Amino acid sequence: MSFEKLKKQMDFLIEVDKAKNIYRQNYITDGSRRENDAEHSWHLAMMAFVLSEHCVEDDLDVLKVMKMVLIHDIVEIDAGDTFLYDEKGYLDKDEREMKAAKRIYGILPEKQKNEMIGLWEEFEQRETKEAKFAAALDGLHPLINNYMTKGAGWKNHDVNLEKVLEKKAYIGESSPVLWTYAKELIEACERLGYFK
Amino acid sequence: MSFEKLKKQMDFLIEVDKAKNIYRQNYITDGSRRENDAEHSWHLAMMAFVLSEHCVEDDLDVLKVMKMVLIHDIVEIDAGDTFLYDEKGYLDKDEREMKAAKRIYGILPEKQKNEMIGLWEEFEQRETKEAKFAAALDGLHPLINNYMTKGAGWKNHDVNLEKVLEKKAYIGESSPVLWTYAKELIEACERLGYFK
Repeated sequence: MSFEKLKKQMDFLIEVDKAKNIYRQNYITDGSRRENDAEHSWHLAMMAFVLSEHCVEDDLDVLKVMKMVLIHDIVEIDAGDTFLYDEKGYLDKDEREMKAAKRIYGILPEKQKNEMIGLWEEFEQRETKEAKFAAALDGLHPLINNYMTKGAGWKNHDVNLEKVLEKKAYIGESSPVLWTYAKELIEACERLGYFK
Repeated sequence: MSFEKLKKQMDFLIEVDKAKNIYRQNYITDGSRRENDAEHSWHLAMMAFVLSEHCVEDDLDVLKVMKMVLIHDIVEIDAGDTFLYDEKGYLDKDEREMKAAKRIYGILPEKQKNEMIGLWEEFEQRETKEAKFAAALDGLHPLINNYMTKGAGWKNHDVNLEKVLEKKAYIGESSPVLWTYAKELIEACERLGYFK
């Protein structure tokens, strides 16, 4: 067999190792350091495994959700992490990330490149049930980190109860149960003084 | 709805965050630091996504492979990482890890606990096609790390060409293509002086 295709796949797998050096605003639960994109993506895949029954829609394709969350932050290798509450950073986020997607997913053989770009765009558009559920997990995860670390990820920024409730409300579309849980976490954070 | 089940699931998801502090012998590809279990597991899931066509068996259940690699190292939260070439560490590895599996997977609701322990045992036994392929990826990953870091993960230990070829040969059962690739990597490491 020709190793040409495998070579492209391995080059991609080596390239994405860089996600381990892209640090997010959130901290791991013991508060000792920031979390990186690879760890965050693993945690979302674990959440997809454990929490999929709480999706409000039937016949959720869990493999598709897992693929989405595994790859959703790869673009940050080039584009960097844009903090959810950073309004300025969001102005050119789409442009920076599309350029990154083309370069990084473009390392793969054509068919896989198209699959990954398709999955990433589907995730970003939040229209299908898998994309909505993947996004709900991505929205829920930092709440857990922040609850466990007394708001460590929020404290360096101008983040308050109202902003968090507004930015995270979409979780309820995909999972009313997870949104009820999330709201309780957010309100507990307010009561405990974890917002600035 | 009762939140009792969700509470157990969230307790488990918070517990497994500790995998981000379990460091392996291998280094991330830029050589700057050791890799932790969460990052390693994410990388294996990415490999399952990208490389599954190279499995020699038909109808591989990729979701099952992903679930296995996502959870395969969770036991190390209690049992620690046992280096593949550490003969002494392997003497009581099974016992330590089974105890850990019962405690950590035991946080989950009954049905999910049984599913995860089942998947972990299946992975360890390497008999089904999914377990063999998941193990092949787990065997291949450190070779890439070591090739990229000039053998950083091997140099503190008594690891040589023959030992690596012997310990990794099982990759070929599940994927002759990946084993051919792996052997080329191992031989390149020997030529370049990456073994002690």
